[in-house]
Amino acid sequence: MDERVREHAAVLVDWSAQVEAGDDVVLSVGPDAHELAVAVAEQLGERGANLLATYSSGEVTRAYLRAHDGEFEEPGHERALVEQADVYLSLGGGRNTSSTADVPGETRQAYDTARADVREVRFDTRWVSTVHPTRSLAQQANMAYAAYREFAYDAILRDWESLAEEMDRLKTRLDEGSRVRLVSDETDLTMSIGNRTAVNSAASVAYDSHNLPSGEVFTAPTATEGTVTFDIPMTIRGEPVRNARLEFEDGAVVDYAAEQGGGVIGDVLETDAGARRLGELGIGMNRGIDRQTDNILFDEKMGDTVHLALGRAYDACLPDGESGNDSAVHVDLITDVSDDSRLEIDGVVVQRNGRFRWEDGFQEP
Amino acid sequence: MDERVREHAAVLVDWSAQVEAGDDVVLSVGPDAHELAVAVAEQLGERGANLLATYSSGEVTRAYLRAHDGEFEEPGHERALVEQADVYLSLGGGRNTSSTADVPGETRQAYDTARADVREVRFDTRWVSTVHPTRSLAQQANMAYAAYREFAYDAILRDWESLAEEMDRLKTRLDEGSRVRLVSDETDLTMSIGNRTAVNSAASVAYDSHNLPSGEVFTAPTATEGTVTFDIPMTIRGEPVRNARLEFEDGAVVDYAAEQGGGVIGDVLETDAGARRLGELGIGMNRGIDRQTDNILFDEKMGDTVHLALGRAYDACLPDGESGNDSAVHVDLITDVSDDSRLEIDGVVVQRNGRFRWEDGFQEP
Repeated sequence: MDERVREHAAVLVDWSAQVEAGDDVVLSVGPDAHELAVAVAEQLGERGANLLATYSSGEVTRAYLRAHDGEFEEPGHERALVEQADVYLSLGGGRNTSSTADVPGETRQAYDTARADVREVRFDTRWVSTVHPTRSLAQQANMAYAAYREFAYDAILRDWESLAEEMDRLKTRLDEGSRVRLVSDETDLTMSIGNRTAVNSAASVAYDSHNLPSGEVFTAPTATEGTVTFDIPMTIRGEPVRNARLEFEDGAVVDYAAEQGGGVIGDVLETDAGARRLGELGIGMNRGIDRQTDNILFDEKMGDTVHLALGRAYDACLPDGESGNDSAVHVDLITDVSDDSRLEIDGVVVQRNGRFRWEDGFQEP
Repeated sequence: MDERVREHAAVLVDWSAQVEAGDDVVLSVGPDAHELAVAVAEQLGERGANLLATYSSGEVTRAYLRAHDGEFEEPGHERALVEQADVYLSLGGGRNTSSTADVPGETRQAYDTARADVREVRFDTRWVSTVHPTRSLAQQANMAYAAYREFAYDAILRDWESLAEEMDRLKTRLDEGSRVRLVSDETDLTMSIGNRTAVNSAASVAYDSHNLPSGEVFTAPTATEGTVTFDIPMTIRGEPVRNARLEFEDGAVVDYAAEQGGGVIGDVLETDAGARRLGELGIGMNRGIDRQTDNILFDEKMGDTVHLALGRAYDACLPDGESGNDSAVHVDLITDVSDDSRLEIDGVVVQRNGRFRWEDGFQEP
């Protein structure tokens, strides 16, 4: 076994999920994540946690959903399992990222709706999602398998403690600030962040962060005004999207366009009222992620990028008892800020051309 | 997909587990049983059952157990899952039948003990164990993969309804009888079966039968006297066993020998007091199983064989409230009855040289 698989498992179990003796752990295993599952099982055994592995296969799900009449009920046994779990580790890794492409949208939606409470219960565990670098993910990234593995482990095997410290500097500024301005090529956008709490997403439940890799700081903006262009290519609902442009007034999208994929952007915007508003402003700070790989788990954490999400806001960013932007969707879009760009908080430039104010090489105006 | 995989799934879901709409189904999937899992998921979707798939990998279990300090506790989340389940389908199929060979016996035993209650709860569901024909099972059987698939589907895709009718004839005679005698080459054994109920193991929960394939009639004998020789080769706890011979007095083994594997037979016998007594007399009636493949799920159902198990008896064979032979083990041993053999019930020959009394070709003495 590649020693990095073991390191990945150790980071996941110790840093990310903080597993302790006696924890009831659900390990959700993709069909091609077997090797990582073996390494994680070893870590769980060492810590004296209790292990139950579930099988997360797109092909199994596809067969089930396509055969079903669409009248789903909540799976009581799955709910009982998750209610009893302390930790839920999801090891993504299939053989084909399009394995459920021919499941009708309404079937998938009905299935998700029936399982909404189970999902909420899972969010009450120490849950962490990661992926094992597979050939299908390499293919999605347009990369050779060996090169993709290097990429993935560069992203995953960070010095998380020191990245957390660095991200905390940005979090402090966001927490103390009230108005953010993002200026870049074909982008000039302002958002309010007063009274909001930024999440230092350092790939650990201790930081309210549930992805490995992570490496972003995010908050929930309001009162968005201006224009933004997303120049990082993405796939949304199976459709390639290139250079989408959104125009905001009074916090809501009033116009949009795209070089490619305008249709799916339009579909997203029409989901509900909340889909026209932002649920997230995130600043990618993981410089182990140095290229787009068409996988949002990685792309949104890429160093020198900023992403905005249409739709639902995360509770962690909101004052207690307050509910943020609500929507059935949360769709991230990403813009490159490595050149000709600046991020201001209350008029102070915090990041210019990808460099932060506290870093070597930051240029005062 | 081979059409027989679909047929296998349909037999499992309909005939064996009798799955209905709304059933909470746990589908335990071996790493190489993926194709069968897809076919079963399709059947479950069609029937409107609720599906949760678990991942049953020897390599994951080995890594976990070897890393653990051996102080196991009951996994509460697994128990909650199984308690809530209506149906538990186990699709065996790994890549290496020796995948847990280097787990220390005491670790495995401590793990099994901690999970004993979970296992009992599983026995309260409509549980069925089957296997997907894999390359590792072919190898264990000393067979080419393509030939093994033919063998496995011949065993699994029977006309179960008509086999159940035929097995019922033997069950009736066993239920009405009180003393069984088995005579064969180097075998002359008598057992009491009065007051016991035979199980018509027709591969369906409707018959108290939980294996697919099945095809045996079994009961729980007492007061065993005489000698029996097991001439079907087997592997017990990783050790090959050839021509084991047991001698019984007053229901207990008083002497034993074997051409090969005498050591493991001795170990089994010394487990506890119940390990020296029989828990099962089974008559194999599945003629789709026409050769030994070193897999007890198939071997013990082979047509023209009789098997006896040292150790625990099944409750289904006992009068209500009565407990049968108790032991931590249940080890099956098999003898060929196709030649020079007869099985008598109360002095009447019921099977001679593999032919039953009600079949063409049965020879009166």
